[in-house]
Amino acid sequence: MTVNQTLIDEAERLTPDLYESKVLPKRLVEVIADSNAFQGWRMGTVGDYEELHSKTFGKNESVTLDFGDHLVGYISFAVESVGSPPDAPLKLKLIFGEMPCEIGEPFDQYEGWLSSSWLQEETLFVDVLPTVVRLPRRYSFRYVKIQVVDASRKYRIQVTDVRCTTVTSADVSKVEPLPDHVPEDLKMMDRIAIKTLQDCMQTVYEDGPKRDRRLWIGDLRLQAQANYLTFRDRDVVKRCLYLFGGMTLPDGKVGACVFEKPAPHVDDTWLYDYSLFFVACLYDYYEATLDREALETLWPVALKQLKLGTERLGSLGVIVEDSTWWCFIDWNDDLNKQAPAQAVLLYTLKRGQRLARTLKDLQEEQWIADQIEIVSKAAMEHFWDSERGLFVSGEDKQVSWASQVWMTLAELLPQEENAKLFDRLHTEPPQIGMNTPYMYHHYIEAMFSCGKEEKAWEQLRAYWGEMVADGADTFWELYNPKDKKLSPYGSNLINSYCHAWSCTPTYFIRKYWLSAS
Amino acid sequence: MTVNQTLIDEAERLTPDLYESKVLPKRLVEVIADSNAFQGWRMGTVGDYEELHSKTFGKNESVTLDFGDHLVGYISFAVESVGSPPDAPLKLKLIFGEMPCEIGEPFDQYEGWLSSSWLQEETLFVDVLPTVVRLPRRYSFRYVKIQVVDASRKYRIQVTDVRCTTVTSADVSKVEPLPDHVPEDLKMMDRIAIKTLQDCMQTVYEDGPKRDRRLWIGDLRLQAQANYLTFRDRDVVKRCLYLFGGMTLPDGKVGACVFEKPAPHVDDTWLYDYSLFFVACLYDYYEATLDREALETLWPVALKQLKLGTERLGSLGVIVEDSTWWCFIDWNDDLNKQAPAQAVLLYTLKRGQRLARTLKDLQEEQWIADQIEIVSKAAMEHFWDSERGLFVSGEDKQVSWASQVWMTLAELLPQEENAKLFDRLHTEPPQIGMNTPYMYHHYIEAMFSCGKEEKAWEQLRAYWGEMVADGADTFWELYNPKDKKLSPYGSNLINSYCHAWSCTPTYFIRKYWLSAS
Repeated sequence: MTVNQTLIDEAERLTPDLYESKVLPKRLVEVIADSNAFQGWRMGTVGDYEELHSKTFGKNESVTLDFGDHLVGYISFAVESVGSPPDAPLKLKLIFGEMPCEIGEPFDQYEGWLSSSWLQEETLFVDVLPTVVRLPRRYSFRYVKIQVVDASRKYRIQVTDVRCTTVTSADVSKVEPLPDHVPEDLKMMDRIAIKTLQDCMQTVYEDGPKRDRRLWIGDLRLQAQANYLTFRDRDVVKRCLYLFGGMTLPDGKVGACVFEKPAPHVDDTWLYDYSLFFVACLYDYYEATLDREALETLWPVALKQLKLGTERLGSLGVIVEDSTWWCFIDWNDDLNKQAPAQAVLLYTLKRGQRLARTLKDLQEEQWIADQIEIVSKAAMEHFWDSERGLFVSGEDKQVSWASQVWMTLAELLPQEENAKLFDRLHTEPPQIGMNTPYMYHHYIEAMFSCGKEEKAWEQLRAYWGEMVADGADTFWELYNPKDKKLSPYGSNLINSYCHAWSCTPTYFIRKYWLSAS
Repeated sequence: MTVNQTLIDEAERLTPDLYESKVLPKRLVEVIADSNAFQGWRMGTVGDYEELHSKTFGKNESVTLDFGDHLVGYISFAVESVGSPPDAPLKLKLIFGEMPCEIGEPFDQYEGWLSSSWLQEETLFVDVLPTVVRLPRRYSFRYVKIQVVDASRKYRIQVTDVRCTTVTSADVSKVEPLPDHVPEDLKMMDRIAIKTLQDCMQTVYEDGPKRDRRLWIGDLRLQAQANYLTFRDRDVVKRCLYLFGGMTLPDGKVGACVFEKPAPHVDDTWLYDYSLFFVACLYDYYEATLDREALETLWPVALKQLKLGTERLGSLGVIVEDSTWWCFIDWNDDLNKQAPAQAVLLYTLKRGQRLARTLKDLQEEQWIADQIEIVSKAAMEHFWDSERGLFVSGEDKQVSWASQVWMTLAELLPQEENAKLFDRLHTEPPQIGMNTPYMYHHYIEAMFSCGKEEKAWEQLRAYWGEMVADGADTFWELYNPKDKKLSPYGSNLINSYCHAWSCTPTYFIRKYWLSAS
């Protein structure tokens, strides 16, 4: 990686202190298999949390605690023995679950292709009782199952004083309450969305506090947009931008994600759309903060991404696709990404153009204008099927939601044409659908952008509202109402159930509902 | 428990600082199933330790390190990633083995009746690489298997700088080398015995550093005897005596074992023979140290054990047996303990008598003399089968080695009669044999006491020598040459392979070989 130490030093200086608070469990629960429940599991109440203190546990016995809401933090509890003096170590297993499935399904049967090391569990030995166990790792959870793997025949244990010290860099006092006239369902969605964002806001904007626990630029862009209307943080967004800008891949590309520890370093993953979103993130940040110093500092990095983005254009001005994981757009193996990528390039060129204008960088502004013309013209020629009145992508002329959504966001057509496009699409939906809240966000945003507000609210309620009905405490990384165990990783156990890119209902509500009413 | 805080304060004041040293692994090994090897497993060399540094490990891959000798201490190692930046936590499993069986046989199939929490393993997650892992628990081991349970597809790991910081309270500089004329096999046995004792000598004389990691009085007695001829410690023995003496069970009984942490406390286990051995331990300590202050302080506790011991005598002067775990003698469910217990009472009364004499406690000396007469007379009447010329025990008149051995140690018969007894026994061995090195120790000691030196050396070599041939780095808790997987706990995995009560070959060699030559 190429390091601009001045930027990294500034990023490190902006590392926030975290707000902490203590949370106690609310109740004792048991996980119950229920085919009517989300993913086949629900939690049944066993008793109040206070009842824990009168219970004892021996070999193979366990208790599951419900903290009542999604938390990100550090857990501690007291353990003492009951009976004879403990004559053997205590072996405990702890399992943390954001969702009931993680408590219900044994981790050792996990066969997904992401590392099983993401599954939140600990096996620990306690040699001396009584003691207070303070686990050093941070967990993302609502439920914790404490199981006695083994003690001895001579003693049982009591568990008391279970505590979670939550952490976030989000200043909740900055969030303005919604006015009374906002409907209850949107208020609830807003609350859950804000909690999602809050739990992802740590020393960087993490994608998910359970997984991957790091800064991805695709997530950052949506988080920052939601943040500007809620927590109003600017320092941590700035830190994130400086981390991306300060550590680029060898040819100047902005990486898809960065790690903070042991020292900041950029991942070797590069994604076409994600690198271009650096421009969009910078644009949004400047719009929200008017921080001209940051704009001037990061502009060369942003411009470089636009230059690299256009290098992928073939002689006809169309993006060259390939078979690798070169562009994200959505978790969908069937999705052809050529047209959506062309649209992302156009979307970010337009934002770059406005930044160049702000900076009075006339030469680059002209270069960008030229690119916009080339990219737009090629897009119309290659991706617009005037007969069917929709966008196609790739050699097989695939019709996907992603192509229509991104071309709309890129404003290739006049907005009234985009509105008609959506009318047609809702009559005859594209064959290739949407899998992630991330893609749904852009779908909803596209509809707002072309004046289809009613349909946007309807679809927001249908998608995020269904997550609420399915019991979301925070919004999920993956959600397909027709396939609720969907996971691109081979197992719903490994999905993140508090995921940054799902936090945008609060953005829509605060941006579009409040301004309309 | 009843606490004499003055004694406990003195015990705590005597807590030793531990000697530390750094030990590096010697080689990389693999465990190989081999029906000719002890317990069916042997270690094959894979490479030098230095070769570890050029190896990398991914999911489900592992390495087993051989430190070349039995160690007790704390382990640390460095881990770094190779490949892409680590994009998922590293999940490691560590398994520690005193013996190859612990590396060869999966712990999750353990079904013994002692707690599986004694099996030395750790499952740990490393969130940030590179790092140095320092495990906080103490292990007793020669082998450690480090297994990558999961990492991710993007990186592998390298393990370097594996270190064990060993701990002991034994001052090895105090051990005098054996003279040249001592045969090589005895020298080897002496070395292994001393290492066994050394690894058990911590802040108390532990029974076994793997299990139970605490102070048992039966082990203490033999350890202290070996110690007086090797490490010449007096403070830690004294600390142990003060712990036992300072915390008694409600009726004044000395408990069978005590725990040090979180604060000293006595276990609720009481054993008839073990409580009486408090007298024997004090006798041996005074003989070795002439510490009259300690003798005066602890004499009331010792005398109390003798009084309690005689309370178990029935009207005929014979110990009343019962079906509970009331007396240890040996790990043998078939063993009737009535006669051996009577002998232990007699053995300890005689030592108590000498202590009373030293203290000029004439009244108690007379009381003890009376008891010796009663107990001896009853023993001859009830346990001596003059027709067969041996001792029997219990209603079924069981003939066991234990009865003969303990009656000999108690010197009920004149020593020339005991010598003849052993001649008869070696022609026609008792039906009930011996299972533990603890019982074998008393068997060998009994032969030395009655002048059967030649047979004693022969049997010492046959038993401990066979352990050496079977690969002992330290001597084992359990050993039956005819049943090498013998375990009173249902699995040889849980046996302790460095056990205090097995350390006495050095005692025999230094007490009897050196004095004879």
